[in-house]
Amino acid sequence: MKKHSADAYLITGLDAHQSEYSYGYWHTRPFVSGFTGSAGSIVITRDNALLWTDGRYFLQAEKELREGFTLLKLGQNGTPEVYEWFENLPEASVIAYDGRTVSAELAKKIRKHSQNNFKFRSDLDLISEIWTNRPEIQKHEIYEHEPEFSGKSHAGKLDEVRQKMRKIKADAYIISSLDDIAWLYNFRGSDLEFTPVAYAYAFITLDAEFLFVGKDFLLDDLKENLLSCDVNIKDYDDFYSFISDMKPDKNIKNSMLKHPSVLINPQRVNVLIRKHLEERMWEIVESADITTNLKAIKNETELQNLEVCQICDGAAVTKFIIWLKENIQNLSLRESEIHDNLFEFRKILPHYMGASFSTIAAYMENAALMHYNPQKGADAKIENKGFLLIDSGAQYKNGTTDITRTIVLGEVSDEMKRDFTLVLKSHIALAKAKWLYGATGAELDIFARKPMWENAMDYKSGTGHGLGYFLNVHEGPQRFSQSASGVKIEAGMVTTNEPGIYREGKWGIRTENTVVAQNDSENEFGRFMKFKTVSYVPIDLDAVEADMLTEEEIEWVNSYHKTVYEKISDGLNASEREVLKRYTREI
Amino acid sequence: MKKHSADAYLITGLDAHQSEYSYGYWHTRPFVSGFTGSAGSIVITRDNALLWTDGRYFLQAEKELREGFTLLKLGQNGTPEVYEWFENLPEASVIAYDGRTVSAELAKKIRKHSQNNFKFRSDLDLISEIWTNRPEIQKHEIYEHEPEFSGKSHAGKLDEVRQKMRKIKADAYIISSLDDIAWLYNFRGSDLEFTPVAYAYAFITLDAEFLFVGKDFLLDDLKENLLSCDVNIKDYDDFYSFISDMKPDKNIKNSMLKHPSVLINPQRVNVLIRKHLEERMWEIVESADITTNLKAIKNETELQNLEVCQICDGAAVTKFIIWLKENIQNLSLRESEIHDNLFEFRKILPHYMGASFSTIAAYMENAALMHYNPQKGADAKIENKGFLLIDSGAQYKNGTTDITRTIVLGEVSDEMKRDFTLVLKSHIALAKAKWLYGATGAELDIFARKPMWENAMDYKSGTGHGLGYFLNVHEGPQRFSQSASGVKIEAGMVTTNEPGIYREGKWGIRTENTVVAQNDSENEFGRFMKFKTVSYVPIDLDAVEADMLTEEEIEWVNSYHKTVYEKISDGLNASEREVLKRYTREI
Repeated sequence: MKKHSADAYLITGLDAHQSEYSYGYWHTRPFVSGFTGSAGSIVITRDNALLWTDGRYFLQAEKELREGFTLLKLGQNGTPEVYEWFENLPEASVIAYDGRTVSAELAKKIRKHSQNNFKFRSDLDLISEIWTNRPEIQKHEIYEHEPEFSGKSHAGKLDEVRQKMRKIKADAYIISSLDDIAWLYNFRGSDLEFTPVAYAYAFITLDAEFLFVGKDFLLDDLKENLLSCDVNIKDYDDFYSFISDMKPDKNIKNSMLKHPSVLINPQRVNVLIRKHLEERMWEIVESADITTNLKAIKNETELQNLEVCQICDGAAVTKFIIWLKENIQNLSLRESEIHDNLFEFRKILPHYMGASFSTIAAYMENAALMHYNPQKGADAKIENKGFLLIDSGAQYKNGTTDITRTIVLGEVSDEMKRDFTLVLKSHIALAKAKWLYGATGAELDIFARKPMWENAMDYKSGTGHGLGYFLNVHEGPQRFSQSASGVKIEAGMVTTNEPGIYREGKWGIRTENTVVAQNDSENEFGRFMKFKTVSYVPIDLDAVEADMLTEEEIEWVNSYHKTVYEKISDGLNASEREVLKRYTREI
Repeated sequence: MKKHSADAYLITGLDAHQSEYSYGYWHTRPFVSGFTGSAGSIVITRDNALLWTDGRYFLQAEKELREGFTLLKLGQNGTPEVYEWFENLPEASVIAYDGRTVSAELAKKIRKHSQNNFKFRSDLDLISEIWTNRPEIQKHEIYEHEPEFSGKSHAGKLDEVRQKMRKIKADAYIISSLDDIAWLYNFRGSDLEFTPVAYAYAFITLDAEFLFVGKDFLLDDLKENLLSCDVNIKDYDDFYSFISDMKPDKNIKNSMLKHPSVLINPQRVNVLIRKHLEERMWEIVESADITTNLKAIKNETELQNLEVCQICDGAAVTKFIIWLKENIQNLSLRESEIHDNLFEFRKILPHYMGASFSTIAAYMENAALMHYNPQKGADAKIENKGFLLIDSGAQYKNGTTDITRTIVLGEVSDEMKRDFTLVLKSHIALAKAKWLYGATGAELDIFARKPMWENAMDYKSGTGHGLGYFLNVHEGPQRFSQSASGVKIEAGMVTTNEPGIYREGKWGIRTENTVVAQNDSENEFGRFMKFKTVSYVPIDLDAVEADMLTEEEIEWVNSYHKTVYEKISDGLNASEREVLKRYTREI
């Protein structure tokens, strides 16, 4: 920092596309600080080292952080956001970072909270200078997501993108979000952990398109398809020189505005890209990605595939639960072993491509930590009593899954049953919801929260998140959360329904299914909507207090279990089927 | 307009304080256009005349508008807002208005949607030039709202205001909202229709305060009190010259910022005031009024008074309903006669000061028009069958009331009963709501909306509005509405609960009570809240289908009616009491 005259150095721990998951090269946060949690920012000054993280990781950070680091607890009174913190630096400070890892939006916020005489360096990659064995950025094969899975051609999707571009008067559109690019070009890759995408950029105008991607990794079929659509395929590494060479006034014919405009999503486009665009005098239009909104509404082919995928995934998870629950007396298992045991059942399924996130297997009080990640050697032994919460999911070419069941392994107390049943009531309230078209995820969140609030309880998380289709396990724009923005829930959106109860030091309970929004009826009052639940795994009746349920709720449970049996019993062997009959008994 | 070189002239129909109600001098909208609805904007150009209004008034506007006027229907696809419309004017247009009637915010929006070479004149009062008999602005007596009613001294309130000013670094604060000023100085007046306030401005710094008010109309006691608090009392008409003489750098000592700052609410401060402040180089801080948030949380004295007020008001309304319902066979009444008949019972009550809004008495299909205002000669006859919706309220020194009952006057169909009961279910859902502190009015609105949506129905309005205390009948910041902003419901806030069903051409049903938010319990999950219903008038059981109600809902109805009987029966005579017993029977 001294050599480069930097007074403060920001490390976000993100990759150049602000992806949720990434591989070794980008894992700068643990390299610098020792902290291995999945969220956190670091600022190093000449005499201090700070790590910001949120409530999920306070304990873990305190345990893991190297000496000399100070932990800043986000969400606690008085803790400034990282971008706010910079305003306390002395006059004329130089703030530096690797601009690839900082979104245009974050950079703007930092500037807004800075003093006038601060200087910024967005090209400083100090990590590479000190990380002698820094892993390479690895590229992997990029393959077609075939039409029988994607259901819509690249040309068809591009057409919709361009319609929206015209509407918002964007002459050009840069996509940096990897899942959006994979969706638009109907390809998939393996460059990120858990998310089947490849490093890429797209530059789209109203009459041309450029795809920047690891050229040598494109499989032939895919390459041929893209070329036949007149996609200009360029190497990933040429993107920055491309936008730097672009002269909007010269390269964009017939601009819709006085000055050629380019659309970017400032949350996913990094600050270096924005800087290039500013230097070239683009009129910058900031908005969510057009593609994000389009891909969130799944087409008929995707929904039909998802149904098949969920049935297979549901059968696999159920077989695992049967194996676990029926043999618990004879098993000696630790939390960290659950993942492999569970995925034995998944990895033989058709179109299986890997896990969609790191399995949470949390026994009793460990499940009260919402994002618990069992670590070999520091994990709990699973006994034949109490609750085991398992939250897991997989990637298939025909869908991404994410399901949580809290499994009763033996004796549970009345209080545990009451909590379990209350979570079920919340779950059912959202699953059964009907609403007038126009309601947002923030409004629908209240459906699940109402039964909690009636009992003076709550959970400190949203009720559910959008789910990708063989893409991200967390994929918006929609989600069920009081803090969700005003995104309306549209027919074809796929979202999780996962209320829970988390009692510190005692237990954690969550019941998570996936729901698809559908049109219901239309009349003089408007168009009404409903959900279809598409996860097919029994909910453990051993902890259900039927007395706490209304008739309609009991009806929902019985009808759901009937559907589960009908859908997945074919995938089970005879003895498993007998057990499933018991697990899906009427209450 | 030619004489003044104006190309477009805007008439908002508002007074200089953007009040909801006002008197004759400010009634420019009907004077110019003939339209008497309570909301609408007019733009006159050299060859056109336009009136914007919303769905409540389309029919009325079409009937009343003078020839030459074009109606623009707000909320219909493609209808621009007034401020958006100006962007279509030719280059170098001059847009003019009487700046007193245009809020700083509206003026800003107009500018934002204007072309660079537009000119603006905010000092053009064309109406006075052509309205030969324009009524005078009348001033009326201004009297103290005594401590036994207000519950908090001016000094105490001012102290809280100044605390907030310090927090947001405002050296000065201008209040233009009349209800806010009346609350802060504990006075009331009669300058507006329905709202007991007086024309005034307040200019507050951290060590001085100036009240601009009709000096000659201040009653002696009040004046003495104000002077004893060191309030500088100035004449209302001196306000503009006062702020124009103010030199912030000279008059404000020890500014908290580099440059003295003044807080204004741009929705309530008119553009002339803002212009003066800009000319004097104030640093302008825009925010909701500090006083609005403070006065929304009613103090213990106010809440105790409100309880007494609601009991008296409830008894009066109930006596009226008994008179109407029991004698309907022998009565020959029209909608426009309801108000006077009803207020016979109210105007004899202690502390009665007038109506809080124009009574809506709507028979059958007329009630499907949400803001129906019965006009003598064009109103319906009330028969001894069907529904009569009555929405009315009064001003008392100890509170403002607003209550709606839909009264069964004889035979009603099964469909009418189902609708009535569904409205009741919605009403109960909100009345019984429990929630984690932090929930907003938009979230609580969903409680009432859920039973509607489950039955594929909805109402095109919010579920309730904030209610003043001997002030505005509509008074925020909180309200129950999907479009409400993020205001949290706090203990002590008073709001209406008024879901409804409106079937065009058939009938309208609304059941409205007032609820006070209260703390309920606190535990590891947080602080939980509930409502107390404080309106005491029976809900007409003659249209309740008990089969549609859950046990809990039936319990709520019976418990509510038990409370109504206990609270108001003392105010009824023996025969009325017998009827009330029947009206509040258990179901």
